[in-house]
Formats: sequence, C-alpha cells, structure tokens
Amino acid sequence: MIKESTFAKFNKIKSNDFKTDFANRGMGLENDINLANNYYRINDIAYVYKKPTPIKLVDVDYKKGIIKKAYFETPSTTDYNGIYNGKYIDFEAKETTSKTSFSLSNIHKHQINHLINVKNKGAISFIIVRFTTLGETYYLSTENLECFIKNNERKSIPVTFFREYGTMIKIKYSPRIDYIEIINKLYFGGNNYDEKKKQNCQQTCK
Amino acid sequence: MIKESTFAKFNKIKSNDFKTDFANRGMGLENDINLANNYYRINDIAYVYKKPTPIKLVDVDYKKGIIKKAYFETPSTTDYNGIYNGKYIDFEAKETTSKTSFSLSNIHKHQINHLINVKNKGAISFIIVRFTTLGETYYLSTENLECFIKNNERKSIPVTFFREYGTMIKIKYSPRIDYIEIINKLYFGGNNYDEKKKQNCQQTCK
Repeated sequence: MIKESTFAKFNKIKSNDFKTDFANRGMGLENDINLANNYYRINDIAYVYKKPTPIKLVDVDYKKGIIKKAYFETPSTTDYNGIYNGKYIDFEAKETTSKTSFSLSNIHKHQINHLINVKNKGAISFIIVRFTTLGETYYLSTENLECFIKNNERKSIPVTFFREYGTMIKIKYSPRIDYIEIINKLYFGGNNYDEKKKQNCQQTCK
Repeated sequence: MIKESTFAKFNKIKSNDFKTDFANRGMGLENDINLANNYYRINDIAYVYKKPTPIKLVDVDYKKGIIKKAYFETPSTTDYNGIYNGKYIDFEAKETTSKTSFSLSNIHKHQINHLINVKNKGAISFIIVRFTTLGETYYLSTENLECFIKNNERKSIPVTFFREYGTMIKIKYSPRIDYIEIINKLYFGGNNYDEKKKQNCQQTCK
C-alpha cells in the first residue's frame, strides 16, 4: 500500500480508518524535512518553507474570526520551496510503504508539470521519496523524473531506478535529512554529478 | 486609515464593519497580481504563486473531510514567491488608503526579516504598495526598504520615499500590474538601475 498525500486522502475518503491513517500520514519524512528547514534557517544556510495546505472557505464567522466550514483543496504547486545559494529550490516529498516501487499517482500531474516548469526556468527541483519499509530515502532530480516519465509506460518508479539515478539521503544526526548536502554535491560540486546521471538515464531509457 | 492584511484583521477584530472591510480588502491589488501571475504562467515567463493562508485546524470531520473549526494564523513568510529568469522572487503586496504614507505595521516584522534573509541569499525580493486614494502603485526593493528602516525612527514610509527610491508600476492593459517589467529594468537591464537608487538612498539616509 502506498501512502497518499493529505489532499488525495481528503478527496477519496472511503473508510473509517481514515483518522488513524491521517494521524500517521508521512509525519516521519515531513517532520524530518521541517526540522532540516529549521536547521537551515537558524544557521542562515537556506530559507525553505512548507507551504500551507490550501483551504476552500465555505462559512466564516468574520466577527469572531473563526472558520466554521471549509474544505481542503488540491494544491497547485509542490509542498516546499525557497532559496539556497542564490538558487530557487522546489520539491515535493512523499513516503511509500511499498518495497518495490513508488506510484506516480502519489504526485498530482500538475505538480509534476510545476516541477518541470520551474526546472526549465533554472530552479533546482526534485522529489524526496522515502521507502519506509526499506528504510531508504532518495533525492530524485526533476530531470531524471522527467526522463523516467517520458520513456516508460508504467505508472510507478521502481526502487532500482531511485538507486541508480537518484541519490540516497543518509540519515544524519542533525539535520536528519540533509538534502542541501545532496544539492551541494549535485549542483555546486563542480563535477556535473547529476549531469552524468541524467545522461546515463537518457541513454538507458532510449 | 490604512488597510491591514487579512491576518492582522483576524487578530484584531474590533468592529462590526469587519465583514464589509474584509470583502473589499485589497482585492484590487491582490486580484491584479493574481492575474499577472496567471499571465506569466500561461506565457511561460515566470512561475510565481500566492501562498495559501495558513490555518490552525481545531475540529475536522475526517470521515467527511470537512473542516468544522479553524483559525487563521499569522503567515511565517510573504504572500508570493516563485521563479523568474533563474532567480528566486519573493514579495509582499499591500494597499493603503492613506494619501501620505504607508505604515510599517502593515507588514509583520518576521515578514520583513524574511524579505531581508532571502535578499541576502540572492533573491529578488521587494514589496508592492498601492496607495488606493492616490491611484499609485509602487515597487520597492528590500534593499531600499531595509535602508529606510535602518535610518529612520518613524514607523511609516512617506509616499515621497516610494516616489524617489521605488519604481511606479503603471497600469497596463495586460497584465495590469506588470512587476516583471520592473524586475527586468532593475536587474536584467544591465544599467544597475536599482543599485543607483540604493546608493542614493543610503547617502540620503545617512
């Protein structure tokens, strides 16, 4: 079973166990990323924030300033964006309990388009996927995500693809998920690390 | 009277005319900016979005996916961010009915700090202020906003400061508020346009 996003969840509520599922929903990864972002801000390394969940207001008591009825909306963009080292950063983070693959249905099509659009404008954009059962977390650049989508019929990305074309994020003490370290290696290390992976990916996918 | 942000409003509800105020709250400028952002996206010029209003959930019917009680929270950052021409863009937009000045109480201190932090990391950050009674809208860079704050005791920025150190955004047909045109002039025109204004500002403020 693959864990879905909050928003997808709210759009597809079918069972009574939703509350339990919601309470446990991806808090591990989300929490790790929030802590990393706090760490980056405190140390003046990067300014990356999680965007609030978009809400459709239905009934608001304006006198008291209380929202009395509202619905969760599907987000237009990704969950996280900000700035590091002069570059615009944009990413989505997801967890899956699958041991073999990550279903693309976890990310809305317009979110993938958003990642591609900002990447084409010069952003460092990517996804972070945690295979909770395997205990493995990967950084996958939008370049390689796009490469996979363009060259594959299947709707899920095998974990082997992440291992080959993504970068494993090893759990550290602080911050636990140091995705900026990966960005440094990929974009500021001067060795075109990701470019090589991208070229390999494109050659393999053909 | 200076119009306050939604969030400030919700934190300071004192009068019965709040509903009316809320309905008219800055929709002109906000609407203009949203239309501009749509225009930029459709034409693949820039990807800038308004962040959703942060909400504190109090009571949610998880089975039905309905929020039954919630409060508006103070946003950690600014309303708008995104990417243009490889640069991270970040700004806040406000309206005032004052004919003479813009009160800094309209922008939370942590929002100003955020603008300064991202500017220091290489962002193009700024505020857009519309003097509704005067029918004038200004782009003011965070550099010059910071210059004003550091060198002035007063808590409101005179319109004359905007005229001298900001850039007027003239209303066009489409998009009505073309702030990217200003950014082009300031940062991509090759004439250090804003650098001159900044230097003048610093000299004057001393």
